[in-house]
Amino acid sequence: MRVFGDIPDLEPGDEFESREALAEAGVHPPTVAGISGSQHEGADSIVLSGGYEDDEDFGDVIIYTGSGGQKNGKQVADQALKGRNRALARSKIEGLPIRVTRGFKHRNELSPKSGYRYCGLFFVDDFWCEKGKSGFYVWRYRLIADEKSATSYLIGEPPSESAAPKRKQSSVNRIVRDYQRALNVKSWHASQCQICGLAISTSAGLYAEAAHIQPLGAPHGGPDIEENMLCLCPNHHVMFDNGGFTIDDDLSLIGIPGKLKAVARHNIGRRFIRYHREHYTKNA
Amino acid sequence: MRVFGDIPDLEPGDEFESREALAEAGVHPPTVAGISGSQHEGADSIVLSGGYEDDEDFGDVIIYTGSGGQKNGKQVADQALKGRNRALARSKIEGLPIRVTRGFKHRNELSPKSGYRYCGLFFVDDFWCEKGKSGFYVWRYRLIADEKSATSYLIGEPPSESAAPKRKQSSVNRIVRDYQRALNVKSWHASQCQICGLAISTSAGLYAEAAHIQPLGAPHGGPDIEENMLCLCPNHHVMFDNGGFTIDDDLSLIGIPGKLKAVARHNIGRRFIRYHREHYTKNA
Repeated sequence: MRVFGDIPDLEPGDEFESREALAEAGVHPPTVAGISGSQHEGADSIVLSGGYEDDEDFGDVIIYTGSGGQKNGKQVADQALKGRNRALARSKIEGLPIRVTRGFKHRNELSPKSGYRYCGLFFVDDFWCEKGKSGFYVWRYRLIADEKSATSYLIGEPPSESAAPKRKQSSVNRIVRDYQRALNVKSWHASQCQICGLAISTSAGLYAEAAHIQPLGAPHGGPDIEENMLCLCPNHHVMFDNGGFTIDDDLSLIGIPGKLKAVARHNIGRRFIRYHREHYTKNA
Repeated sequence: MRVFGDIPDLEPGDEFESREALAEAGVHPPTVAGISGSQHEGADSIVLSGGYEDDEDFGDVIIYTGSGGQKNGKQVADQALKGRNRALARSKIEGLPIRVTRGFKHRNELSPKSGYRYCGLFFVDDFWCEKGKSGFYVWRYRLIADEKSATSYLIGEPPSESAAPKRKQSSVNRIVRDYQRALNVKSWHASQCQICGLAISTSAGLYAEAAHIQPLGAPHGGPDIEENMLCLCPNHHVMFDNGGFTIDDDLSLIGIPGKLKAVARHNIGRRFIRYHREHYTKNA
């Protein structure tokens, strides 16, 4: 099974002699490809090795180039949003973390002189297509370091095409969620919303959200388990989180017509829907 | 006009002798009410004055209690999600910042010994209803400090009702957006999605998202102006940002059937939709 996120005993800064050592430690399983992942599961890891002329590394922000269309280290054709490129796009829409490793061939002050340095977890913030230096279209990904992995500085600012709005560093209490459990819920429902049946189409495949019924945040303290999650489209997620509707014990909806779509495998904890009813639609 | 966010020359830590001085500086216009706002516009400011027994102040996280249902400083009736309580809920769904001021009567180590201390901008992260210490239902709001305003410590952790998932501080490059322009676009379209016509119903009123056509983030550098925004439902926002559809120069949709709903007041910049077409759906 593909492992997303942290690997036990692995810390940002850990160094490895070779791609084989990196694979053996479970950081980046493939020994040649720069992207580890599949188009249905998402990407779990990348290695920056200087292979793509369009890569830009600002430390905590990396503009990464997809794979394909190369011959003898030169871009000779357009890249497609398939295979491992699609895997990186999938990681964006699933919100999955990606392990990032810098290799000695990657020309950057954060790269090791020899071997490979694991640099922590990043999230894909955006993906798009543009004409690269070669004149061929390449897929590009904006990766942002998770705070734990952040170097706490940027090597210069990423370039901006026009007067960019002012930026500032912002800190939020992000809850460490169980990626696998959210993926389970979405897969059991084939990404179809349990309210309206809709699955959202994107260029990276179907999109759905795993919504917590009793919120995880303080003071609610809901657990991060499948029984406390629903598979929802973004519209019904916003409504559910903001008192637009709630759910009765028999799974009929309150506030809007209909009934929650259920599948045998996904047990919904009645105490969680009671918590939601009590806290999000009372007196509203 | 109600002013959301920063006030010129006002810095977190600035102190004021009285509520009148606070009002005169534009920090918190009403001289008695703890919440400044209206239910249609949202709330722009709160003052913590020790008036509500259920308030909990952890520094960068505040669990704030709504207003109403009090007599002689005691909670004697349930609170409703109306008026200023609804204003705070509205600020959550509009993503509006709230100025927070601590008063000398608010028992907390961050409060001043006398007068009032402005403590910076917070965002409403969640709102819900619960039985307060009095036995009556009160509305509660989880406020989280914006990084610039954060004290960089929490006074203890907010209580959790069950084994909470591990938390960590996470840093993201948040772009300072022009709140008023996003509000303008949503109001011109009466919160109806320009693709499907839907306006999302919540207990805090209608919800819509102002979506940037050419993204603000590097390297795209789109401008934060109305001509570069669409009023979308969350579903069509996710699709638009992830290559699910794009828009032709005549405003017909590409990838899904239909045409962008337009209003005379809202001019859509053709160069922004061209940027989107070129970068988000090519080769996908």
